[in-house]
Amino acid sequence: MNNKTFASDNYAGVHAEIMAALINANKQHVPSYGEDEYTRQAIAKFKNLFGTDTEVFFVYNGTGANVLGLSAIMHSFNAVICSELAHINVDESTAPEKFTGGKLITVPQHEGKITASQIEERIQRIGDQHHPQARVISISQTTEYATVYSIDEIKDISAIAKKHNLFLHMDGSRITNAAAYLQQDFRAMTVDAGVDVLSFGGTKNGMMFGEAVLFFNPSLAKHVKFIRKQAMQLHSKMRFIGAQFDALLTGDLWLRNALHANSMARLLYDEMSTIPAITITQPVQANGVFAIIPKQVIEKLQQSYFFYVWNEKKSEVRLMCSFDTTEEEIKAFVRLLKQLI
Amino acid sequence: MNNKTFASDNYAGVHAEIMAALINANKQHVPSYGEDEYTRQAIAKFKNLFGTDTEVFFVYNGTGANVLGLSAIMHSFNAVICSELAHINVDESTAPEKFTGGKLITVPQHEGKITASQIEERIQRIGDQHHPQARVISISQTTEYATVYSIDEIKDISAIAKKHNLFLHMDGSRITNAAAYLQQDFRAMTVDAGVDVLSFGGTKNGMMFGEAVLFFNPSLAKHVKFIRKQAMQLHSKMRFIGAQFDALLTGDLWLRNALHANSMARLLYDEMSTIPAITITQPVQANGVFAIIPKQVIEKLQQSYFFYVWNEKKSEVRLMCSFDTTEEEIKAFVRLLKQLI
Amino acid sequence: MNNKTFASDNYAGVHAEIMAALINANKQHVPSYGEDEYTRQAIAKFKNLFGTDTEVFFVYNGTGANVLGLSAIMHSFNAVICSELAHINVDESTAPEKFTGGKLITVPQHEGKITASQIEERIQRIGDQHHPQARVISISQTTEYATVYSIDEIKDISAIAKKHNLFLHMDGSRITNAAAYLQQDFRAMTVDAGVDVLSFGGTKNGMMFGEAVLFFNPSLAKHVKFIRKQAMQLHSKMRFIGAQFDALLTGDLWLRNALHANSMARLLYDEMSTIPAITITQPVQANGVFAIIPKQVIEKLQQSYFFYVWNEKKSEVRLMCSFDTTEEEIKAFVRLLKQLI
Amino acid sequence: MNNKTFASDNYAGVHAEIMAALINANKQHVPSYGEDEYTRQAIAKFKNLFGTDTEVFFVYNGTGANVLGLSAIMHSFNAVICSELAHINVDESTAPEKFTGGKLITVPQHEGKITASQIEERIQRIGDQHHPQARVISISQTTEYATVYSIDEIKDISAIAKKHNLFLHMDGSRITNAAAYLQQDFRAMTVDAGVDVLSFGGTKNGMMFGEAVLFFNPSLAKHVKFIRKQAMQLHSKMRFIGAQFDALLTGDLWLRNALHANSMARLLYDEMSTIPAITITQPVQANGVFAIIPKQVIEKLQQSYFFYVWNEKKSEVRLMCSFDTTEEEIKAFVRLLKQLI
Repeated sequence: MNNKTFASDNYAGVHAEIMAALINANKQHVPSYGEDEYTRQAIAKFKNLFGTDTEVFFVYNGTGANVLGLSAIMHSFNAVICSELAHINVDESTAPEKFTGGKLITVPQHEGKITASQIEERIQRIGDQHHPQARVISISQTTEYATVYSIDEIKDISAIAKKHNLFLHMDGSRITNAAAYLQQDFRAMTVDAGVDVLSFGGTKNGMMFGEAVLFFNPSLAKHVKFIRKQAMQLHSKMRFIGAQFDALLTGDLWLRNALHANSMARLLYDEMSTIPAITITQPVQANGVFAIIPKQVIEKLQQSYFFYVWNEKKSEVRLMCSFDTTEEEIKAFVRLLKQLI
Repeated sequence: MNNKTFASDNYAGVHAEIMAALINANKQHVPSYGEDEYTRQAIAKFKNLFGTDTEVFFVYNGTGANVLGLSAIMHSFNAVICSELAHINVDESTAPEKFTGGKLITVPQHEGKITASQIEERIQRIGDQHHPQARVISISQTTEYATVYSIDEIKDISAIAKKHNLFLHMDGSRITNAAAYLQQDFRAMTVDAGVDVLSFGGTKNGMMFGEAVLFFNPSLAKHVKFIRKQAMQLHSKMRFIGAQFDALLTGDLWLRNALHANSMARLLYDEMSTIPAITITQPVQANGVFAIIPKQVIEKLQQSYFFYVWNEKKSEVRLMCSFDTTEEEIKAFVRLLKQLI
Repeated sequence: MNNKTFASDNYAGVHAEIMAALINANKQHVPSYGEDEYTRQAIAKFKNLFGTDTEVFFVYNGTGANVLGLSAIMHSFNAVICSELAHINVDESTAPEKFTGGKLITVPQHEGKITASQIEERIQRIGDQHHPQARVISISQTTEYATVYSIDEIKDISAIAKKHNLFLHMDGSRITNAAAYLQQDFRAMTVDAGVDVLSFGGTKNGMMFGEAVLFFNPSLAKHVKFIRKQAMQLHSKMRFIGAQFDALLTGDLWLRNALHANSMARLLYDEMSTIPAITITQPVQANGVFAIIPKQVIEKLQQSYFFYVWNEKKSEVRLMCSFDTTEEEIKAFVRLLKQLI
Repeated sequence: MNNKTFASDNYAGVHAEIMAALINANKQHVPSYGEDEYTRQAIAKFKNLFGTDTEVFFVYNGTGANVLGLSAIMHSFNAVICSELAHINVDESTAPEKFTGGKLITVPQHEGKITASQIEERIQRIGDQHHPQARVISISQTTEYATVYSIDEIKDISAIAKKHNLFLHMDGSRITNAAAYLQQDFRAMTVDAGVDVLSFGGTKNGMMFGEAVLFFNPSLAKHVKFIRKQAMQLHSKMRFIGAQFDALLTGDLWLRNALHANSMARLLYDEMSTIPAITITQPVQANGVFAIIPKQVIEKLQQSYFFYVWNEKKSEVRLMCSFDTTEEEIKAFVRLLKQLI
C-alpha cells in the first residue's frame, strides 16, 4: 500500500508550519477556553480577512461547526434547505436534527450545486403552524463534488434568502479550496455575497484539529458561546486551535495549501481525461476528481491506493488531493491506472 | 504575571513526550476516523490496563466524554444521580440534559463525595411513569474538590447501583491523579469496583486534546460509534488522539505526570498549612488545594498568579497543580502569600 | 357559508354514540391515568381485534401517536423512510425530528403511495457511523391522497423491512377508512401483513379527541409508558378516551362511520367525474376526492364551502367526506359546482 | 370501595355545565385547530379576565402547558429554578428537560413554597458559558402541598426575577383554587404581581381535558403556535376545548367549583384536626389536606377509599377534594377514620 492516498484530505497529516506553530505555542501556562493570546491573534486575523464585525468561534470539527452555526440561527421548529448530498444531510449522522431539533429539506443537486429557483420552490407554507418553517439555506463551498459556486450563484441564492427572510449558511469545510479556485478574497465570496454564517474548515487544509464558525452579523452570535459549550465543542487548551489558525492565516499558508491541492487535482484530471475507458463525471475545480472507472480496475487499484467508491452502481470513484500530494504520486497513480486498463 | 498558574491543569501545555508523539505520528497518510495504527495501539494499551472486554472510544473533551458515556446507558426518560458539585451538573452547560434528554438528580456532597446511602434515598418511584426514572449514578474521581474515593467507597456505591439495576458512571477527567493517590491499578478502582462506564481524561494530564470513554461491558457499547458521531465527537485525523494516548500510556507517563502534580499539591499544602491566617478546607489527596485566604490577600495574589476563587462568600480559593508545576514555583507562590499575609 | 364542509374530517363534530359514551362515563370518581374500567374495556376490544399480544396506549392526537410510536422503536441516530407527502414529514411541524432526534428520509410518492423498491434504495450505508441509520419505514393508511395500500403492497414493504432489520410503522389516522375500503379485518391489514406499530386514529372517525398507538410485539412497548408521559401524551381523566374508543369499537361504529364517509366520497366522485371541466387526480378509494377545478370556480365555491386547495399551482383541491356528510350535501355541492362551471 | 375518592381532583368526572357545553358545541362542522367561534369566545373571556394583551393557547394537559410555557421563554442552555417538589421536577417525567433541553435547579420548599431569597441564591455564574444560565423561575399556585402563595410573596419573587432579567412562570394547574382562597381576581395574582407565563388548569376543576397557557407579554408568544404544534399539543377539534373553557369562565363556574372544593378540604381539616392521633402537616388553604395518620389505619382506610400516601416514611397522606365532593362524603370518611383509630 502506498503512503499517500486519494481517499480524503483528512488522511493527510499536519502541515509543517502548523506543527511548528503547535510546538511554539507549547510554552508556559496560558488561560484556557480562549482567553489566550494565540486565540486572540487568530481571531484578529479572521476579522482582518472577513471584516471587523465578524464574530469567530473555534470548535473541534466540521460537524460541530455546522451544527453550531445552524443552532444559532434557527428555532427547533425551523427547517434548513440544502442539497440532497449536503454533508449535513448524509455524513453527519443525525447531529443536525438531534441538536437543532429541526428538519433538513433536500433539493436535488447538479454538479454538487443547488440553485436559487430550486430552493425557492421548497420555501412553502410559511406561517403555517403545521409545517416545518424554512429558516436557513445551507450550501457547501466547495460542494461535495468538489465543485465551486461562483459568486453570482451565491448572490442569487442569498437574494432568495433575503427575499423570504431566511439566513444563508455556508459549509466551508473546504472554503480555502474554493477561494483558491475563484481567485477571490474571502469577503467577496462570503459576507459580501450575502452569507450569514460560515463554517471555515481547518482540518482538511493541513491542521491537526479545529474549525471556525464565523458570524457576519454580531447579533446572530449573541448566544453562541453558550451553545458551543452545550454542543461539547469548547476546547479547554484553546491556544492549540488558535495557534494553528494563526499559522494557517499567516503568509497565506491556507492559500498555498489550497492552490497546491487544487493543482494536483487538475493534474490528475489532465492525466486521466486522456484515458478512453475513464469518464470524468464532474467539473474539476477544486481538489477532487470524480470519475467512472471500470469496476475490476477499481478493485486492483485499491490494492495499492486508498480511495473511496462514491457511487457503487455507477462505478464512480472520488479521488481527493491534499496539501501534501506530489506530482510524482499523481503520475505513479496514473501509470498504474493505465497499466490496469 | 507569572508564567505558571494555579488556575487549572488545563492552563498547562502539552507534555514533551506527548508532543514528540504528535510529531512522530505526522507522517504520510493514514486512514481517518480511527482506522489507523496509532489509534489501534492506544486502544490495545487501554485494554491491557482495563481488561480485554473494555471498549474504548476517543472523543474531544471531558464534556463530550461524559455525555457520550451517559447517553449510551440511559433513555431520555431516565435520571442520573450525582453530586450537587458534579462537573456534569455545574460546569457542562446543559449538555447532559440537552443531549440525553434526561434529568440530573443531585445529592449534597461532603469533601466532594457522595455516599451510597445518600444515593439510595434518591432512587425513588421506580416504575412510576410520572417520575424521572433513576438509571445511572455518576461520581467524579477525583472529585471536584480534588479528593479521592477509596475503592471501598466505590464498591459501596456500585453495590447500590447493582441492587437497583442502575449503572455506575465515573467522570475520570482526573482519574490518573486518583490512581496515583490510591496507588492502585486502574482495574481495581474501576471495573473491579463495579464501574460500568469511565470518562478517562487526557487533556488535564498533559495532552493537547482528547479523552477516552471506556465501557467495561461491551454490550453497553453497541451503539456508541453512532452516538459519538451524532454527538459531534468523532475526530477525522484520529491518529493524533491515538498517538497522544499511546504516549500517555507508555512508560507510565500518565503516572509520572499524576504523581508529580499530586506531590506539588502536597508540597503546597505542607507550606500553606503552617500559615495561621489560612484554613485548608478539604483533604489534600490529589493535585488541588482548597483554602480560605483573607479576601484582600487573594486580590493581591491574583495580580501575580492566575487561580480561581471557588467560593466568593467563604473566601475559598482553588489551587491546582499540574504535571509541569515546579517546586520553585510553589515556593515562590508561598513566599508571596506569606509576605501578603 | 354552509354548515357542512369538505375541508377535513376533523371539521366534523362527535358522533352521537361517542357523545353518549362520554356522558355515560361521567359518573362518580374513577382512577386516573388509565387505571379505570372504561380504558381496560377499550383495550380489551383492541386486543380482540388485533390479537392478544397487542399493547395499546391512548394518546391525544395523531402527531402524538406517530411520534410516540416512532420514538419507541428507534434511536436518535436512526432514520425513518417515508413518503415526501407523509403527514409526519409535512404536517407535524418538526415534532418527529425534535422528539426522536432522528431524520426522515423521503421517497417520491405515486397516488400517495411509496413502493418496496423505492424504499429499499434508500436503505443505505448501514453500519456507517457517518450516515443516519435507516431503522423504520413509515407508511400512511389511508395515504395523504386518500388512497389505500393493498395488503400485498403492505406485505411487499414489510418484507423489505424484515430483510434489512427495519420496523414497519403505519400512520393509521384514517385506518378505519382503509379497512372499510379493503373489506378486510384489521389483523389482516396490519399485524398479519408485517406492521410493527400502528397509529389508530379516532378523532377523524367521530371521536372528540384521542388516538391509540398499537404495538404488535410487546417487547417494543417495554418503555412506552414512560415515553408517553415524557411526550406529554398521558391524559389524566383517561376514562374519557377509553369510553370513546369503547364506543367506536362497539357495534362496528368505526366501520359504519368509515363506510359512510367512503361512500359519500364515492358519490362525490361519481357526480364530479361527469363534469368535463374537472379532472379527478387520484383514485377515489376512501373518504377523499382530489380534483383539478378551474381557479375562478374554486374561489366562488369557497364562498359557500370550506375546503382546501391542495396544490395551488395545479389548481388541485382536496374534498374530504366525514361520518356525518349527507347525500343532500354532496348533491347541493355538486349543483353549485356545475352552476359555477 | 366508595364512589368518591380523595385521591386526586382528576379522579373526578366532568362538571354538568361543562358537559352541557360539549354537547352544545357538537353541531355542524366548524373549522379545526382553533379557527372556530367557541375557541374565539373562550379566548375573549380569558382576555377579559387577564387583560387584553394576554395571548392564550389551549393545550391538552398540565405537562403540555408547563413545557410549552417554559419552551417559549428559554433557550436550551438555560435553567429553571423551582421547588424540589415542583410538578415539573418530580411528576412530569423528564418532559421539561427533553423538550426544552435545559436544566431544572431545585430549591428546598417550606409548606410547598420557595422564597425570593432562596431563589436568588441559585442565580449563579450568569454569563459564564460553562454554567447552566438561570432564565426562569417557576412556582406552583396552588403548591404541591395545596398551599397558596400570597400576592406579596409572588411580588417578592417577581422582583428577583426582574432584578436578574429572568421570567416568572406559574404552574397554575390549580390556579382557580388559589384564586378562591385569596379572594382576589386573576389579574392581581398573576400579571399584576409580575407573572410572565401562566399554565391555567382546566382538567382538575371539572373539565374533561384541556389547559390554557397564557402569555402576558405578547412578544413572548411570538413563536408559540409553532412550538405548540411541535410539542404535540395542538388539538384538531379545538372547539371542544374552547367550549369547555367558555363554560368554565361563564357564571363564575371556575370559582364556584374551586370554592366548593376548598370548603370541602376545610371541612375535612376541621373534622380531622380534632382527632388526636392525627397531625395535619401543612396549612389547609386550598383543596387538599396533608396529614400524618398511623400506618395501620391508612391501610384499612384504603380498603374503602382511594387516596395517596404522600410520604411513606412519615406516614403522611394527601387527601384532595374536588368540585363534586360532598359534605356527606367527608363526614362518612371521617367517621370511618375515627372508627379505625
